[in-house]
Amino acid sequence: MTMRNDIALIGLGVMGSNLALNIADHGYKIAVYNYTADLVEKFVKENPHPNAEAFTDLKAMVASLKRPRQIIIMVTAGKPVDAVIEALKPLLDKDDIVLDTGNSFYQDSMRRFAQLQPLGIVFAGVGVSGGAEGARHGPAIMVGGTHEAYQSIGPVLEAIAAKAADGKPCCAFMGEGGAGHYVKMVHNGIEYADMELIAESYLVLKRLGGFTNAELADIYERYQQGPLQSYLISITSKVLREKDPQGKGDLVDMIVDAAGQKGTGKWTCIDGFETGVALSMIDGACNARFISGKVAERTVRAQQAVPRTIKLGMDKTSLIAKVEHYLYVGKIAAYAQGFDLYRSASEKYDFKLNLAKIAEIFRAGCIIQARFLNDITAAFTAEPQLANLVDAPFFKARLADCLEDAREVCALAIGNAIPNPVMAAAISYLDALHSECVGANLIQGLRDYFGAHTFERKDAPGFIHHTWSCKASFNAV
Amino acid sequence: MTMRNDIALIGLGVMGSNLALNIADHGYKIAVYNYTADLVEKFVKENPHPNAEAFTDLKAMVASLKRPRQIIIMVTAGKPVDAVIEALKPLLDKDDIVLDTGNSFYQDSMRRFAQLQPLGIVFAGVGVSGGAEGARHGPAIMVGGTHEAYQSIGPVLEAIAAKAADGKPCCAFMGEGGAGHYVKMVHNGIEYADMELIAESYLVLKRLGGFTNAELADIYERYQQGPLQSYLISITSKVLREKDPQGKGDLVDMIVDAAGQKGTGKWTCIDGFETGVALSMIDGACNARFISGKVAERTVRAQQAVPRTIKLGMDKTSLIAKVEHYLYVGKIAAYAQGFDLYRSASEKYDFKLNLAKIAEIFRAGCIIQARFLNDITAAFTAEPQLANLVDAPFFKARLADCLEDAREVCALAIGNAIPNPVMAAAISYLDALHSECVGANLIQGLRDYFGAHTFERKDAPGFIHHTWSCKASFNAV
Repeated sequence: MTMRNDIALIGLGVMGSNLALNIADHGYKIAVYNYTADLVEKFVKENPHPNAEAFTDLKAMVASLKRPRQIIIMVTAGKPVDAVIEALKPLLDKDDIVLDTGNSFYQDSMRRFAQLQPLGIVFAGVGVSGGAEGARHGPAIMVGGTHEAYQSIGPVLEAIAAKAADGKPCCAFMGEGGAGHYVKMVHNGIEYADMELIAESYLVLKRLGGFTNAELADIYERYQQGPLQSYLISITSKVLREKDPQGKGDLVDMIVDAAGQKGTGKWTCIDGFETGVALSMIDGACNARFISGKVAERTVRAQQAVPRTIKLGMDKTSLIAKVEHYLYVGKIAAYAQGFDLYRSASEKYDFKLNLAKIAEIFRAGCIIQARFLNDITAAFTAEPQLANLVDAPFFKARLADCLEDAREVCALAIGNAIPNPVMAAAISYLDALHSECVGANLIQGLRDYFGAHTFERKDAPGFIHHTWSCKASFNAV
Repeated sequence: MTMRNDIALIGLGVMGSNLALNIADHGYKIAVYNYTADLVEKFVKENPHPNAEAFTDLKAMVASLKRPRQIIIMVTAGKPVDAVIEALKPLLDKDDIVLDTGNSFYQDSMRRFAQLQPLGIVFAGVGVSGGAEGARHGPAIMVGGTHEAYQSIGPVLEAIAAKAADGKPCCAFMGEGGAGHYVKMVHNGIEYADMELIAESYLVLKRLGGFTNAELADIYERYQQGPLQSYLISITSKVLREKDPQGKGDLVDMIVDAAGQKGTGKWTCIDGFETGVALSMIDGACNARFISGKVAERTVRAQQAVPRTIKLGMDKTSLIAKVEHYLYVGKIAAYAQGFDLYRSASEKYDFKLNLAKIAEIFRAGCIIQARFLNDITAAFTAEPQLANLVDAPFFKARLADCLEDAREVCALAIGNAIPNPVMAAAISYLDALHSECVGANLIQGLRDYFGAHTFERKDAPGFIHHTWSCKASFNAV
């Protein structure tokens, strides 16, 4: 009766239970365990499953596994993961595979990978997106660890993953060590930008167009029929149409205007600065959430402000069409930034990320699933070394179609005092990428003038310091 | 002959030598030392000074100091600072004061402060701004450590510091431990935003106005007569007027359009995300430097792009006047963000920063010295608990005067494909601060819909999860 289970899962919270049931449904014999017995009892009581065997003893659970062992950890990120690894270590053997499917920070996964490597145990950081629903019925799964370990663990993970419209599983080996959690982190950063873009389009349509919530819901339903088709656009309509259960009109108007965050967006921003990649839209989305938190201050100022008259200068039908282009341009720029980070980080950490594959597995199961991801997959498949997404012929043509409308809507928002930081960042990013001069020559001149920081000349290689002919009085003010 | 020197300085690079000479000039007997003898010999040979005594033996140098000892370390940030501290430790006694005037990361200064505290030795992280010139003739000095230590070390530091127009020294005790280096770090972040604002105004004037470099230099000279008066604006004219020593026209046109960075701007951005304060303009300035680095890519795209006709819609005189307002609005927003970080960090680290005092000591000696800082000093003196700089009556009035022009120029830049990410961030920041709704209600609705992240209702306290009536198919795409 030993070595009867195919795989194990530790941590029977909602995510862990759902993932275990998903695995059991696919015909795998799974051993489940939780550090406290209460969740084990709850699982057995609420979800009896012929393929799932519950344990309250870790050693017995490990002993029930076929070799090499495959053990999934789904506990709170941070110290609990290390505690589980410590408890498992004496029970494991060479070639066993430990998968951490929680929201771990990728650098922790890199550290744990290195820590277990000398023991011959493969630690795989695995990013799982799609929330409780996804875990139960098909998440997107981004796998780290080693390529060899993926040969063993891949089949079960691909079986339980979401399937894209073409039937391909949304699960793949991303790269060694912490690569899976890295890809998941940046996915969440992109998600922040996607949501802020929707929020900015909502503000523009609401304040410039004066649409009701029902009309707004109709507009996003219309967008859902076009190139913006995505899970987030589809649920935007549903949120806008929801009635307040307490009968005070539409629910969206009863929600406090302060967005929370759980940290992965912020991690992505910090990683962008550390890697030297411009993520102005993800940065802007996090900053917008910070500012949203100052509700009381903002309300006082808004009430004291002189009322403005909206200047639209176009009919509402045009506005709806132009905002679709505005959102689409924002989406292209957001993914251009996120994928630029993937490429740079791949070099920095030697992850050897396959950008086409990343876009491909985002097509279903995760929050940012979108029709648009087919086009990104195609772009990086055709040209894996693409310097930037905007250079792909498909996206170049879409920008040519849409960018002027996006400029017009963004300028209107600025003129009418409607904050749209992330769309403005998108347009400035695209314009900078297409500009021969962004004014950095002047910055270099200033830096050399006051701090002898040196600069490069256009006509010769190397950095030089110039002896400036006229020295300003330092205390010039 | 022992205990004859008032103070010591370790590290005789350009900055250290200049600081030592500045101290000696002010009548203090200074002992100078360097780890390698070559720089000691160089100092003695090039800068013989009756008040400076050079040492090649650390023990002898320490023995020459009056008690309690005051020792300045001016070496490369990082491990060298720790190495010097380790070498000094056995030679020091209770109540001695060690000052690190290098570009140390504030968390290192906090760590070193805590490390020396049990020995009764005060470690003071001291931010020094103004480069080599400032070090020699008067820098701005931001002092950490302890209030008590400042009583001993303050007089010499205030003597050597720059003096503002009203005669006040640009030196003060900022707060305990790492506060001095913290204030300096954010100073540098603000400097990044200031320089990027100048670069964006330069691009707008050059591309929209079609001005020559000589005309641009005249325009910044004109700005220097008004509220923008500052060291950076003054040297902008000088950089624009500089001729290429190789005879190829104006030097600014020969400088490669790629801005370098040494890290303090990036540190500030990361600190903003960790502290939860929106620094969209400093973030934008760092990102703009990252993008500037992609010179080859940008040039290829620019050359492939369809040429645009500039649409200005106003005369050039109006443009010059409006760009002055545009820059001024940007400056207000940049300092609002920087000082918001000071306030939040002060609470987070218990620095007890005095915001008026910070603005006051920035008025001379440092790179961001500006007439404008008098107004910030006045604003925080009048109301130390100001929620945001934009709430000060003076700045509220200036924004009322200038913001519409700034909107117009920013919208023109966006319409004409001229990147101005930091000015666009400034306007969006100001608009968000004055908006009752920024669309975060919709974001909260989406987050609760897909992830049960909960939200607050406007009519009741506490976070709730709503059971959404219509569940979207998860794989909607």
